[in-house]
Amino acid sequence: MRYFLEIAYDGTRFHGWQTQPNALSVQEVLEDCLSKVLRQPISTTGSGRTDTGVHASQQFAHFDVAQELNPEHMVYRFNRLLPDDIVAKNLYLVTDEAHARFDAFERTYHYHITLAKNPFTRYYATYLPRSVDVEQMNEAATVLLRYEDFTTFSKVKGDTKHYRCNIYEAVWRQQGDELVFTIRANRFLRGMVRLVVGTLLDVGRGKLTVTDFERIVAGQDRSKASGAAPSEGLYLAKVTYPEHIFKTSPKTNPL
Amino acid sequence: MRYFLEIAYDGTRFHGWQTQPNALSVQEVLEDCLSKVLRQPISTTGSGRTDTGVHASQQFAHFDVAQELNPEHMVYRFNRLLPDDIVAKNLYLVTDEAHARFDAFERTYHYHITLAKNPFTRYYATYLPRSVDVEQMNEAATVLLRYEDFTTFSKVKGDTKHYRCNIYEAVWRQQGDELVFTIRANRFLRGMVRLVVGTLLDVGRGKLTVTDFERIVAGQDRSKASGAAPSEGLYLAKVTYPEHIFKTSPKTNPL
Repeated sequence: MRYFLEIAYDGTRFHGWQTQPNALSVQEVLEDCLSKVLRQPISTTGSGRTDTGVHASQQFAHFDVAQELNPEHMVYRFNRLLPDDIVAKNLYLVTDEAHARFDAFERTYHYHITLAKNPFTRYYATYLPRSVDVEQMNEAATVLLRYEDFTTFSKVKGDTKHYRCNIYEAVWRQQGDELVFTIRANRFLRGMVRLVVGTLLDVGRGKLTVTDFERIVAGQDRSKASGAAPSEGLYLAKVTYPEHIFKTSPKTNPL
Repeated sequence: MRYFLEIAYDGTRFHGWQTQPNALSVQEVLEDCLSKVLRQPISTTGSGRTDTGVHASQQFAHFDVAQELNPEHMVYRFNRLLPDDIVAKNLYLVTDEAHARFDAFERTYHYHITLAKNPFTRYYATYLPRSVDVEQMNEAATVLLRYEDFTTFSKVKGDTKHYRCNIYEAVWRQQGDELVFTIRANRFLRGMVRLVVGTLLDVGRGKLTVTDFERIVAGQDRSKASGAAPSEGLYLAKVTYPEHIFKTSPKTNPL
């Protein structure tokens, strides 16, 4: 049987999603927990990697298990064993070929900024001591919707065949002292959102014009992007799958 | 010149507000910062103590300084030196006799509970794995408004002359998975809010009836209160002063 597990995590103390030697990852802690509760070695495949320190308010991973599971009971048992910073939210029975990474056709990231120093959000939002021009940042963000190649905002080469992404939404919304960037696309490149945010913030600070920003995107030259925005503000917020992969009733599906 | 400094802090890593030997307090870190920025030894008097791990979304402390200060500039400089978990919010010039503790005529505390395991609020709200009867908890909370002696909910003896408090408001409000208790009074006894919350939660769990709760309050016997609720959910949220102690314009006053 194949299952999709929906989780959320505070990325602060993890070296990202993916298991790696000599560093604690979300995937490793999760697989330890699932293997203990299910009394068999469980390996998971995530919808995608999140980098060191990056959070997820919604992430999915699939795994295979011999027996049928009671979702509600299992979520309860996973949460009892998981540490406080990883939460199991739901468990869905899916078709045998469903794949958490390849079937995800849309991902949404949020980037949280606080414009007032706030003792309660220091791990959950990036503090900007100076105000930025949100209107200019939004004008620059719309440029992203007109391009397909994002080589400019790709951190590493070699692990992807191409740099094309379809960006459906890229917008900054301000509410009081809180500024949130939402970016939605079919796929993202490594480090892409933090490089996009870092470069848009330079537009907001007046260091770059919207025209500069467009030239940087069009140039496909990584060295022209600004520095990456810090990880604590970034959240994987939503991963979307086609309905037909879920075997459970539509009411309990995450769509 | 006497000033009131308005601050907020994440209490997680502090042994409470008050300076003490061999343990890090908010007051100690704050006084270090003020003394450095103002280049003179500064000692502060807080509106009241908060216990180990308790947060403050609004706290006030007064201090005396030789010269007149530019509030906006000073707040900026304090924040540059203060750690991420203490924030200076405002600075107010007050009358020479104004006293952060004795002039405060009303304090409000909030207690935050989350009914769903949440990786992002583990230091900021107490997680209750089972639901509670909020209606019963609110009925019991109104009992508090009819009593004046709260010996039952006082953690220590000896440091107060009497156990009388006038409680003006005591109410639970639920919004989705978040449950917030607001309690407002002229004064609070040591550990009082956490003992009140712990005992009200036992009403919510059905371990105590509203009648039991009233008997416990009336009994003035500390051993009858339930265990204290954990510190991470508790916030000093508001401290109220009479308008006449502020020398700056009413517009900039915290009232």
